[in-house]
Amino acid sequence: MSFMRFPHSVKLLVEELKRLPGIGEKNAQRLAFHILSLPAEKVQALAAAMVRVKEAVRHCERCFNLTEDHLCDICRDPGRTEGLLCVVQSPRDLIAIEGTGHYRGRYHVLMGALSPMRGVGPEDLKFSQLLERIASENITEVIVATNLDVEGEATASYLFNSLEPIQIKVSRIARGIPIGGSLEHADSLTLGLAIDGRHKL
Amino acid sequence: MSFMRFPHSVKLLVEELKRLPGIGEKNAQRLAFHILSLPAEKVQALAAAMVRVKEAVRHCERCFNLTEDHLCDICRDPGRTEGLLCVVQSPRDLIAIEGTGHYRGRYHVLMGALSPMRGVGPEDLKFSQLLERIASENITEVIVATNLDVEGEATASYLFNSLEPIQIKVSRIARGIPIGGSLEHADSLTLGLAIDGRHKL
Repeated sequence: MSFMRFPHSVKLLVEELKRLPGIGEKNAQRLAFHILSLPAEKVQALAAAMVRVKEAVRHCERCFNLTEDHLCDICRDPGRTEGLLCVVQSPRDLIAIEGTGHYRGRYHVLMGALSPMRGVGPEDLKFSQLLERIASENITEVIVATNLDVEGEATASYLFNSLEPIQIKVSRIARGIPIGGSLEHADSLTLGLAIDGRHKL
Repeated sequence: MSFMRFPHSVKLLVEELKRLPGIGEKNAQRLAFHILSLPAEKVQALAAAMVRVKEAVRHCERCFNLTEDHLCDICRDPGRTEGLLCVVQSPRDLIAIEGTGHYRGRYHVLMGALSPMRGVGPEDLKFSQLLERIASENITEVIVATNLDVEGEATASYLFNSLEPIQIKVSRIARGIPIGGSLEHADSLTLGLAIDGRHKL
């Protein structure tokens, strides 16, 4: 109803903004009006940054992290521990692990997780590329850091089975109670796994 | 920390997105990654819609509503009640009132509210234009629909005082308990005004 009175170009912008994740009608209107209130050069800078990111960013030819070059910053970093590989589902997961400062090896981004429900098989992921890297790069240890949900766990299982014949160390990130989390509010599955995964103090 | 590993163009886009209202670092990252995942033509469409809105949209020369022409849809609509003017702070307020379907007159957008705190005086608003319109358009009734906050009320008071010498009907939108609101949770100021503004059933 209230939408009727927007000028055509405002309606179009609201429609475009609504396609973004987590942005509903009200939010899209608010953003559209904010954009209208900005100086033209600020809007052009935002628009250009969007278009440029699509033009400039590609996937690293080795690990499938995001980069503007053939190889990403991490693959080109000579200070990284050789032979150690962390397998993640997405570049965002890689960034999250980098943020911890707890890992100094390299990565392999699968670009998704196995999902029979959604018809995603190993051939849809960067899986054969992972096996090739393990063979050619003298990888001695693989840390599987896929998500702890059904798809992530299925992907981890598949990986363990595939890597079993090869003589390398394969580990999975720990499951347990988050820091600051209370046992009272933890789900019993996580709590059970946290007890199984106990370590000496 | 985790920001370090973004390619340059992703960093730039995240910085641009963070300037938008209500979008923090995490949200900007999420949007940037979403934009990266879209086909290039979808991103171009969004970027073009932003740039176009700035190029196409201007303020109505008469009432300062948004339009892509000299006069807005409402000013050009011959079905509107002549002589009746609703004064609002912004085009969004106008759209909100249009959304009610309870008003069929025309509007005047002040483009803000008086604010001694922020140094906004009557000369910074479309105030003289309002007085000119009242004189030249045979306005007989003005509804003051500025916000119910300090600045909106100050603007309304200023308007009442300015229009007092002229022989026209001036009214203010009703203050009271919102529909669905409970008396228990209403602030006492609003509740007091709702009692003062009681009407016969």
